[in-house]
Amino acid sequence: MSLTSEAGQSQSELGSILPRPARLARFNVSGSHLPRAQTIAAPSIRQPLSLPQRYTVRSFNMSSSSSSAAASGSQKKHKVAIVGSGNWGSAIARIAGHNTQRHSDIFEHEVQMYVFEEDYKGKPLSQVINETHENPKYLPGCQLPDNVVANPSPVDAVKDATMLVFVLPHQFIRSVCKQLKGKVDPNAHAISMIKGVEVKDGKISIFADVIQEALGISCSALSGANIANEVAQDKFSETTIGHRADAKGRENAELFFKLFDTPTFKVGIIEDVAGVSLCGALKNVVAIAAGFTDGLGWGDNAKAAVMRIGLMEMKRFSEEFFDGVKPETFTETSAGVADLITTCLGGRNRKCAEAFVKTGKPFDQLEKELLNGQKLQGTETAREVHELLAARGKVDDYPLFKAVYSIAYEGIDAHDLTSRL
Amino acid sequence: MSLTSEAGQSQSELGSILPRPARLARFNVSGSHLPRAQTIAAPSIRQPLSLPQRYTVRSFNMSSSSSSAAASGSQKKHKVAIVGSGNWGSAIARIAGHNTQRHSDIFEHEVQMYVFEEDYKGKPLSQVINETHENPKYLPGCQLPDNVVANPSPVDAVKDATMLVFVLPHQFIRSVCKQLKGKVDPNAHAISMIKGVEVKDGKISIFADVIQEALGISCSALSGANIANEVAQDKFSETTIGHRADAKGRENAELFFKLFDTPTFKVGIIEDVAGVSLCGALKNVVAIAAGFTDGLGWGDNAKAAVMRIGLMEMKRFSEEFFDGVKPETFTETSAGVADLITTCLGGRNRKCAEAFVKTGKPFDQLEKELLNGQKLQGTETAREVHELLAARGKVDDYPLFKAVYSIAYEGIDAHDLTSRL
Repeated sequence: MSLTSEAGQSQSELGSILPRPARLARFNVSGSHLPRAQTIAAPSIRQPLSLPQRYTVRSFNMSSSSSSAAASGSQKKHKVAIVGSGNWGSAIARIAGHNTQRHSDIFEHEVQMYVFEEDYKGKPLSQVINETHENPKYLPGCQLPDNVVANPSPVDAVKDATMLVFVLPHQFIRSVCKQLKGKVDPNAHAISMIKGVEVKDGKISIFADVIQEALGISCSALSGANIANEVAQDKFSETTIGHRADAKGRENAELFFKLFDTPTFKVGIIEDVAGVSLCGALKNVVAIAAGFTDGLGWGDNAKAAVMRIGLMEMKRFSEEFFDGVKPETFTETSAGVADLITTCLGGRNRKCAEAFVKTGKPFDQLEKELLNGQKLQGTETAREVHELLAARGKVDDYPLFKAVYSIAYEGIDAHDLTSRL
Repeated sequence: MSLTSEAGQSQSELGSILPRPARLARFNVSGSHLPRAQTIAAPSIRQPLSLPQRYTVRSFNMSSSSSSAAASGSQKKHKVAIVGSGNWGSAIARIAGHNTQRHSDIFEHEVQMYVFEEDYKGKPLSQVINETHENPKYLPGCQLPDNVVANPSPVDAVKDATMLVFVLPHQFIRSVCKQLKGKVDPNAHAISMIKGVEVKDGKISIFADVIQEALGISCSALSGANIANEVAQDKFSETTIGHRADAKGRENAELFFKLFDTPTFKVGIIEDVAGVSLCGALKNVVAIAAGFTDGLGWGDNAKAAVMRIGLMEMKRFSEEFFDGVKPETFTETSAGVADLITTCLGGRNRKCAEAFVKTGKPFDQLEKELLNGQKLQGTETAREVHELLAARGKVDDYPLFKAVYSIAYEGIDAHDLTSRL
């Protein structure tokens, strides 16, 4: 089968050293995802996509990636480790467990999952997961495939792994990376599913960069309109992988596409690791603003306006502080506009912000009452972003971010939200 | 006061023959709207907007527009007529009435409003409106300013008008234009607030073009996340004016900006009359799909995914069938992404589609039961779009539009929605 891409390059010309040729996988910014392999050749589907000129068609030429584990022995398969096992970690481990079985030509059967050990009804949580194939603490009622194996040691979990999925709460990233340093295959691929950013000493970092630098391996990012419980129930979702611009980055995205894409969890790909990461962090600030409008009873026009203005600030902020960020990551991908919608419809940031306006209680009290003391990411990120902007003298350039900070931390009346935009 | 735009041109250099200089008014695609006149000079607000390169900064040089009514006599003011008086027409007449008073240097005091005459509790509706300054049939409980005068004759209402606001149900446009032909100031400016498109003989037209061609006057389009009742209550909203590329079109947008912009109804401007018009029509098709996901109980991920995919199809469709459409109209303006959000959150298309799935009743029955027999725009537009695409052999290029049509008109199970994307 020969498939001509928009750039005129025949797919059949693309070499691949994966056991079976990897399909062209990329984010189809003009609409829905690329059809599966069996339909990809249909000219009526392919012709009209007419990608705008600014999108280059990327072809993943796997033959150039001689450093991958699969490449080092021509039939060696990729071994997957999930580093994290909370609500989202368990949901994604379930998909990875199924897809390693589905693509048994590419992946080893077993998927290791690092579990932060804790007591669950008198037993270690990892033991409970391995006995019941369920994470009753963080994803109750959801059956994990048998090939997902819980492991209380992060070092042991990643042993021989060539693909690492980081899905930890962000405060644990640096300490886990410290433990893993020197214990990870130097050719391994990593992906970060961590929401949030790190702001330190007037600098902002995404966690994909933190991981890549700490471990010296290529790290992509995955984010999208992905409420974990819905994904775990196979309710239809899209997600976005943002990858690095080099060949290793493209191979990385191709592999994680194979690991995660299913008929109900559709993976798009875009060459923008920072944009995808920042979407996941900054949308929570906008959700706080959307929650304020809900609390004030301002209606759908105002909420949509706040979401639109927030999306534009997310994009502008990211373009200002990170090189190579693509605007369409924000406006056209699941990580961008779609996740913003999901987060502003439901989501605990929206919910707590609504309660903040309605009850007049401070956020730390609402966290205790509504979130069992867990910290809200939206207010935390608003504070971090504010500190960064203040250090750079740019607070006034982002009126929505500023208003959220002022209302949450400085006692400004939420009614002033839109007069500040 | 001298204000330097991103292009380096000083605002003070921009001539204007309006009685007072018109401010630079344009859609600020990087975030919120331009600040009002009194704050526009603040460098901390202006500097950081950093518009992407593809946006040209437009400066409205009113001195070139010698054909305008205001221009023909140096102090002659613009006279406004609203052609239509339904829910949205009445809400926008209220704003226009207030703003003609606020900008009494630009506009005549009186605003004529054409009212399709009908009986309201034994009296002509136009008489009731003029006696009570309220439209009790279509916008009950909302006080219209005294300078809005209802007029049952469209020809009389537009007499001497230099600015015409078309806000009629689309089925009446051609007949009203026929009545107005030759009776309108040839230098008048028009704006269309009509949702929907006209599909005839395998051709698709926007109503701004229909009006422009029928009357020979420059016609812009206005659309946005604008639920009429919320706008009428001064709840915060944004809207978007899409205008033509020529000098007359820019002058048109500048004037309608002045007529409509208020602190709670913020007007953005973009040079894209077709994109703004098409957003208003096509979003209703996407809202039908979003309503299906609500009816199926698929959750927020799926709904956000359908909205994202729908937005991309709206953009692609518009770029395919209309010249000069800007992608950012769809992804960054109130007419685009924000109105899509509003429409998919509330809105009767969404509501009826939800009921369609939950009750199994056909749409024409739901229209009778839920909408007092009014026709749903989303299903109607889906059918028109489908006919156009079928005539061009392009149905398969738009899987979401196709799925909506197939579910609404061909008995396809709504559960198949996402498997077709």
